[in-house]
Amino acid sequence: MTAATLTPTLDDLETPCLLLDESRMMRNIQRLGALMAEHGVQLRPHLKTPKSVEVARRVMSSPQGPAAVSTLQEAEQFAAAGVTDLLYAVGVAPGKLARVEALRKRGVDLTVVVDSLEAARALAAHVQMAGAAIPALIEIDCDGHRAGVQPGNAEQLVAIARVLHEAHSLRGVMTHAGESYACRSVEAIADMAEQERAAAVSCAETIRGAGLLCPVVSVGSTPTAHFARNLEGVTEVRAGVYVFFDLVMAGLGVCTVDDIAASVLTTVIGHQPDKGWILVDAGWMAMSRDRGTAKQAVDQLYGVVCDVQGRIYPDLLLAETNQEQGIVKLRAASGASLPDLPLGTKLRILPNHACATCAQHDAYEVVQPGVPGVVAHWERFRGW
Amino acid sequence: MTAATLTPTLDDLETPCLLLDESRMMRNIQRLGALMAEHGVQLRPHLKTPKSVEVARRVMSSPQGPAAVSTLQEAEQFAAAGVTDLLYAVGVAPGKLARVEALRKRGVDLTVVVDSLEAARALAAHVQMAGAAIPALIEIDCDGHRAGVQPGNAEQLVAIARVLHEAHSLRGVMTHAGESYACRSVEAIADMAEQERAAAVSCAETIRGAGLLCPVVSVGSTPTAHFARNLEGVTEVRAGVYVFFDLVMAGLGVCTVDDIAASVLTTVIGHQPDKGWILVDAGWMAMSRDRGTAKQAVDQLYGVVCDVQGRIYPDLLLAETNQEQGIVKLRAASGASLPDLPLGTKLRILPNHACATCAQHDAYEVVQPGVPGVVAHWERFRGW
Repeated sequence: MTAATLTPTLDDLETPCLLLDESRMMRNIQRLGALMAEHGVQLRPHLKTPKSVEVARRVMSSPQGPAAVSTLQEAEQFAAAGVTDLLYAVGVAPGKLARVEALRKRGVDLTVVVDSLEAARALAAHVQMAGAAIPALIEIDCDGHRAGVQPGNAEQLVAIARVLHEAHSLRGVMTHAGESYACRSVEAIADMAEQERAAAVSCAETIRGAGLLCPVVSVGSTPTAHFARNLEGVTEVRAGVYVFFDLVMAGLGVCTVDDIAASVLTTVIGHQPDKGWILVDAGWMAMSRDRGTAKQAVDQLYGVVCDVQGRIYPDLLLAETNQEQGIVKLRAASGASLPDLPLGTKLRILPNHACATCAQHDAYEVVQPGVPGVVAHWERFRGW
Repeated sequence: MTAATLTPTLDDLETPCLLLDESRMMRNIQRLGALMAEHGVQLRPHLKTPKSVEVARRVMSSPQGPAAVSTLQEAEQFAAAGVTDLLYAVGVAPGKLARVEALRKRGVDLTVVVDSLEAARALAAHVQMAGAAIPALIEIDCDGHRAGVQPGNAEQLVAIARVLHEAHSLRGVMTHAGESYACRSVEAIADMAEQERAAAVSCAETIRGAGLLCPVVSVGSTPTAHFARNLEGVTEVRAGVYVFFDLVMAGLGVCTVDDIAASVLTTVIGHQPDKGWILVDAGWMAMSRDRGTAKQAVDQLYGVVCDVQGRIYPDLLLAETNQEQGIVKLRAASGASLPDLPLGTKLRILPNHACATCAQHDAYEVVQPGVPGVVAHWERFRGW
């Protein structure tokens, strides 16, 4: 970052662009950090949300990690920045093991995930060929959301564990309660956290019961991480989106809208007064097409509209998006009045899903409450 | 492009990545080119879809253009590649006029769009300050879809035209039938094309009737461009997504699925046999969250699944997506059987919306029928 990248006020920024409120982010980081300290469990932040070395350094407990990633591109980028304890938390394709091995040879303790005998055997074959173990966690399907061994399928679980063990690559189990995003109350999230914990811990016990070591029991999602009543038997918790939060998390009750640290800065480019529309230069290219709140009790459409300082306009939403153009209007049946926002006015839009919206941008323009301009410019990366 | 970027077979590519079938693309380009030649109207391809100099050179009628863009980043990138006739086809924010002026000073004939007296006056003020005209088209709202002057509002139209005329910046009118994406038949698209044409031409006549010049009458959307019965009075047609086509366009009947030139290459990373699921490494990060077919007669979910050569599997869809993981399954109530696709199998996914899916990638891996590997690697750019 050089002084030349900083702007005296937000009005000097080209729009659309991605703003990051550093104070909110640090508050979010401290909140979950304190919760995990109370539980006495290690936090492994998921870096798929920030995809930024600067954010990673603030969210990790040490410059070396631990952290989780969703792509090998992330693993390689963070490894280059000095992170050495990484979990590649998506089932690994056999064709990607050579890249995993290359990172491990550079001293990065990169762990992979498998959920089938087929994948475990492919890993074992690679290990045999390469002559070096690749530690793996067995993914458990705690909620039917995506991948993983069924927690009740002890036979399959132990068979996979044995293959990994023989390849000196068995490190433990992991699960992710993706269905927690569909919960309707904090109580339901806490129940889901217990379901997630119980599935992972029981599978670890099954593996240990077969005489194998299972040191790692990894669980997590942002909602369950915040409302778990008990993490007994869990060795680490993974969470990603909590670093920025978003409207989906606010709709779930995991945070409030005042905790949302990422927003898109946009400019008013027109009006359709007869329709009550204000046109802005943030379309789906800037926001993403994510509509995660569509299934929640309060649908926030493409996002909640704030003034340039981040103060929310009552009932004002980014209602529709074209590629590079958005339509701002009042929520249906709102009693609020449309604010007078002349051509050129800057606005902030809070996103449905921070992971998706941030991925549309190449950098964060970092802001602080009370500071008129941008205090830092942090680059993001992308790709696979 | 260097030889080192080419791969002998598609199995050598890291996944997910974006494939571009050059033969299909060239066929799509020739089809609309021939239609426009029949009408005797100039085509101004919209480069927001490809965002690639290599594709632009193939889709434009000359290396200098004409072409349309949706961001000033595109204008600057294509200008650097020698394109000199550009329309920035989104209402311009006054704060962006300095970048427009800078491009014009470099010899790029960049035209902007305004749709209000407020915007026209901001442009006129900038022109007066800068001492150089900035040609503008007045946007007309032909279908209530987004921005533009109402075609019946002659008073507003002429008032805007006069402000632009006095600033030596009046070049014409433009409109875009965005609602054509919601048409249910080719007949309805043809009707929408006539509505688009009539709105633009009548507004041009209103301006001319006030004694002002209105040389440009610009219309277009991919559906209306393909089914317009008559383009009398129109001087140019804009279209973008036709260069690649997609499932939304196939659902509209503008193309067939065999015309879709862009697809995402993905790898099988797991199975949930009890659920009939095949897991792949293409999630919403690779596909985008666009679900444009959701409102069509046939919902294609996140995309149609093909084998590595592009042959469609009957009723096999990318049904759900997480960030870096997709769930492939058969369409509900399908009589087809789930193909046996072992771990590591490569597949292609046809996208809902080519503009959105391509925007998730940094390059095209160019393929040709009958050629086993990648014949070229074309970079894309992004940002604003």
